[in-house]
Amino acid sequence: MTVQSGRLIAMEGIDGCGKTTQARILADALGALMTHEPGATPLGRALRRILLGDESSELAGRAVPVARAEALLMAADRAQHVTEVLRPALARGRWVVTDRFSGSTLAYQGYGQGLPLPALARLVDWAADAVVPDLSVLVDVPLDVARERLTQSPDRLERMDDGFFARVRAGYLQLAEQEGDHWVVVDGTAPVAQVAAAVAAAVLERVGVPPAAVAGPAAGPRP
Amino acid sequence: MTVQSGRLIAMEGIDGCGKTTQARILADALGALMTHEPGATPLGRALRRILLGDESSELAGRAVPVARAEALLMAADRAQHVTEVLRPALARGRWVVTDRFSGSTLAYQGYGQGLPLPALARLVDWAADAVVPDLSVLVDVPLDVARERLTQSPDRLERMDDGFFARVRAGYLQLAEQEGDHWVVVDGTAPVAQVAAAVAAAVLERVGVPPAAVAGPAAGPRP
Repeated sequence: MTVQSGRLIAMEGIDGCGKTTQARILADALGALMTHEPGATPLGRALRRILLGDESSELAGRAVPVARAEALLMAADRAQHVTEVLRPALARGRWVVTDRFSGSTLAYQGYGQGLPLPALARLVDWAADAVVPDLSVLVDVPLDVARERLTQSPDRLERMDDGFFARVRAGYLQLAEQEGDHWVVVDGTAPVAQVAAAVAAAVLERVGVPPAAVAGPAAGPRP
Repeated sequence: MTVQSGRLIAMEGIDGCGKTTQARILADALGALMTHEPGATPLGRALRRILLGDESSELAGRAVPVARAEALLMAADRAQHVTEVLRPALARGRWVVTDRFSGSTLAYQGYGQGLPLPALARLVDWAADAVVPDLSVLVDVPLDVARERLTQSPDRLERMDDGFFARVRAGYLQLAEQEGDHWVVVDGTAPVAQVAAAVAAAVLERVGVPPAAVAGPAAGPRP
């Protein structure tokens, strides 16, 4: 069988759920390209500094995007990511694991920030320009578990309050239920190796395994 | 008559058409707030550097946005501008003159860059969050006239080729024709004072004059 194109797997979840670790383990296991949002392109890195509030920047505290602007900047990062990284890799038949994709915008700026979902879904689809994950994996953990795992210097979105993250988590669970054909929920409270096994099993069942011909060492932009 | 809200007048046209000069003259004449896109807010100024290719930046030449990302960044700038500047001013009853608004995105990223218009129009409407100009004034000049007036150090969009600007100009004229109720075309090749008189006459006829009660000295962000 000739491979016409690669596969795209998106790791999703609230900050501190462990999805970045899981994305790396999955990408290594699949020989997939590992990438992330926001910030996987030169444009994206500039936008990431704006979006997540680089404390060292002249903008710190003065240029906090309103919800609509935040969603539009995430979408701009995605449009660039799709064009420069995802579409070329997928066209070469590569499998790609991305740490966050469209689900993050719906969960964070939709459920979390309260932007109406139908219009936001249209925005997200337009930005992704027909690139759709074959599977989105939600690494689900309760808020207290996520909080314990957060870094010492949380970024602007990580500093949002518990109410925000409760809405984001509930939103993710609702997305995964509504879009069951393209989403799977994995319990992220288990030990790392056990979560990794559950993620790998879900990918094997729902997407399959990459053909050896296109598998190679994991490479590409990392967070 | 009690004034419930202000009025928004957008000056539009290709780079070098003279609309910034005309926007200033009109704002002074009306006692209106003068503002502009992109870059009238702290977030917008950061985005403007990205969008127009600040040569001194580390990003120069490396982070050129693809067309979709460019449209999304312009929309993000507009969402912030609407929330921080336009809506508060209009709510206080102020008249506002903005150097570029939604028409620029349709003309530059739609007609110029070739993004499909229906989806782009939805994006632009969503970003503006129901803030719509009472009148958009197209200052129309042929390409050769615009080229002569361009600055010595043109930005990234100003450096686009003649084919691009021909599409943008034709797009503007089409927008003005289709949306005749909310657009007026002024010949920008005449002397500055004559163009200013034509702009003022169009605003007087189509929008009226601001009540003295809310008129004040022109102030606010300038390009």
